[in-house]
Amino acid sequence: MIDAAFVVRLRGELAALGAEALVALAHAPGEPEVAPFVGRARLGEAFVVLPAVGEPRLGYWTPMEREEAASTGLELLAPEALELARLSRELPDPADLLAGVLAAALARTGVVPGRVALAGSWPAGVLIAAGEKLAAAGWSFVSGSAALRVARKTKRADELAEIGRVAAVTCEAFRAVASRLAGAEIRDGELICDGKGLTVGRIKAEVAVRFAAAGLTQPREAIVAPAEEGGVPHTTGTPERVLRSGESLIVDLFPKGLLYADCTRTFCVGEPPEALSRAHADALAALELAHAQAQTGARGWDIQRAVCALLADRGWPTPVDAPGTLRGYVHNLGHGVGYELHELPSFKEGAAEGDGRLAAGDVITLEPGLYEPGEGGFGVRLEDLVVLDETGAENLTPLPYDLDPRAWLG
Amino acid sequence: MIDAAFVVRLRGELAALGAEALVALAHAPGEPEVAPFVGRARLGEAFVVLPAVGEPRLGYWTPMEREEAASTGLELLAPEALELARLSRELPDPADLLAGVLAAALARTGVVPGRVALAGSWPAGVLIAAGEKLAAAGWSFVSGSAALRVARKTKRADELAEIGRVAAVTCEAFRAVASRLAGAEIRDGELICDGKGLTVGRIKAEVAVRFAAAGLTQPREAIVAPAEEGGVPHTTGTPERVLRSGESLIVDLFPKGLLYADCTRTFCVGEPPEALSRAHADALAALELAHAQAQTGARGWDIQRAVCALLADRGWPTPVDAPGTLRGYVHNLGHGVGYELHELPSFKEGAAEGDGRLAAGDVITLEPGLYEPGEGGFGVRLEDLVVLDETGAENLTPLPYDLDPRAWLG
Repeated sequence: MIDAAFVVRLRGELAALGAEALVALAHAPGEPEVAPFVGRARLGEAFVVLPAVGEPRLGYWTPMEREEAASTGLELLAPEALELARLSRELPDPADLLAGVLAAALARTGVVPGRVALAGSWPAGVLIAAGEKLAAAGWSFVSGSAALRVARKTKRADELAEIGRVAAVTCEAFRAVASRLAGAEIRDGELICDGKGLTVGRIKAEVAVRFAAAGLTQPREAIVAPAEEGGVPHTTGTPERVLRSGESLIVDLFPKGLLYADCTRTFCVGEPPEALSRAHADALAALELAHAQAQTGARGWDIQRAVCALLADRGWPTPVDAPGTLRGYVHNLGHGVGYELHELPSFKEGAAEGDGRLAAGDVITLEPGLYEPGEGGFGVRLEDLVVLDETGAENLTPLPYDLDPRAWLG
Repeated sequence: MIDAAFVVRLRGELAALGAEALVALAHAPGEPEVAPFVGRARLGEAFVVLPAVGEPRLGYWTPMEREEAASTGLELLAPEALELARLSRELPDPADLLAGVLAAALARTGVVPGRVALAGSWPAGVLIAAGEKLAAAGWSFVSGSAALRVARKTKRADELAEIGRVAAVTCEAFRAVASRLAGAEIRDGELICDGKGLTVGRIKAEVAVRFAAAGLTQPREAIVAPAEEGGVPHTTGTPERVLRSGESLIVDLFPKGLLYADCTRTFCVGEPPEALSRAHADALAALELAHAQAQTGARGWDIQRAVCALLADRGWPTPVDAPGTLRGYVHNLGHGVGYELHELPSFKEGAAEGDGRLAAGDVITLEPGLYEPGEGGFGVRLEDLVVLDETGAENLTPLPYDLDPRAWLG
């Protein structure tokens, strides 16, 4: 059943936009701007219409999906009611068809031509051509994405439960990685497992098996980035590469159930070089500072500034002192997590909604990292996933921070 | 390097649309309408401009991605050249910013206001509002998606190699599933593995580990659907469910590297009920007929009709005799596979490009299935992935078809 508080927040945002209705389009299952309405229902092409007054309705394109559609508990705009079969015959052009279907759906929902907030995703060319046709019929459009992001920011109990479940599986996957690394032999500097070089791909398999068993997907490839590959934040790691002792290994996992979780740890098997140990200690100090400050009422960018000050004090370039730096602390401290891997709240000054203050029900990452790109380089990133409440915060990824995977055992 | 034949096909389609340029938008890595230009380069927000005359250019939004962008070999529209930092400051509204960036990119590519073919994907509300702004500046839009689909239909050598690689890993995953099923004990009708009930989730894990090790993702969850869950084609299977002897198990895997592969087999551990054996034999006969007819010059819907005739002859409802049936053969025979899981060629009459004839370089599935929904129900689907050449076809998924996983061993 659709959450009343979510709808109230959303209606408030729509009113501010002067929109008579929200239309959110899903071109594929899992569309994050439609998922808050349809939950686990597996629909292909579908859309939600939320009128300024009245219940939200779900339109879907394939009669075979009627049971999935009904499972949402939403009022339905069934393909039969929209006369989709007839429209498809009469309007072979996909843009004409989309315009025709949306006009029919809005009419059946009692919305008369005027301003509509549009959200979700659809093939760009078809959408823009359909928009021209609807404009000729008196409709105008504003983006409803920001409204949905604001309404989605505060997580509901069922959403928190799902994020918690995904985070718990993520923690299991990290423990499996630590155990695999701790159990490796070292031969000529290479990590050996079952008689073969332990590769990035093997570590990715180690986590994938756990995610798949729990029904989680990885819409984007996990990051398992050794040494200088980890020295550039978004490098995902070369699967064939054999891991070595004494090098850093960033493992950043972000699987998705109905919602995402997100967590990063950094490992080093064997003796870490002094520069890596120091970077790890500094990143950990930054994370501890972030945990201490990440509370309801705090502003994300104030915490980012505090972390920059701490790291600058320890000799690292930061975005405050050295904008655009590729060495040291090169990115932001965190982001909201939900139906999208990156959503509100934002830690970026100016990009945040309202006054940028963190609030109860926010789910955020805290992820300071330090990077030394190029030959002989390394990377360290430590990332926790945190849910805020009125009085404090809960760390959904309570794992060790140790570089040494043996310290994770027992 | 961008493929010349692909660009020539695309320009032909753009000319037919009367478009001065194609603009393809990627809001996230892996956008299938941008991937043919950028290959393995991992970019977040990016776009390609292909003018009617001149080289394609790649615009990207994050200076940190300059090396990834350069790796495409395309001429670049760097954020610095587009003055993205200034535009972001001056245009805080995302639709204004998108309109401003595209106008700057088109101007730098030498395209003057006129008709542009638009493709790719972008948040719907932002896109439609940006389109209004660009329309006021003299631009008009048609969808470039169909043009790209036509241009992408014939696979290039590098694309065929990648599909072949992904298909080979998929075959390995199927053999692992067969081996796991064949090795299970049966206790009170349940399959037992390592002393525990063998679940749908365990089978999904078995395949996920192989995909992850090869760097493949599963943007949509694999289908591992036992018994009546397999009686409805798109049911993905309940992870906790323990598999039983004598029931059908549809396994449909569609992992993605740079491109997709797609393959389905159906298993039954222990003695299959007579109805299941018969459905399996009929589906296999349909697949053999499809293989025999799927050649350059044939039309997809003619093969579909032939398969319907064969199955009707064996007593099954089909879309020809019983449109909308949920029992028997309920779907189409196949689809093209490439950067999208479903792309051209289409087997659907009227939906296909041109005359609907299959051509050399097409990669298609052949996937007859038979379904008995509801209590006591089952499903059978057998799906091969095939590449056509001038004189014949190669099956990229040359696996056994046997229901009995023990027949797969050795």
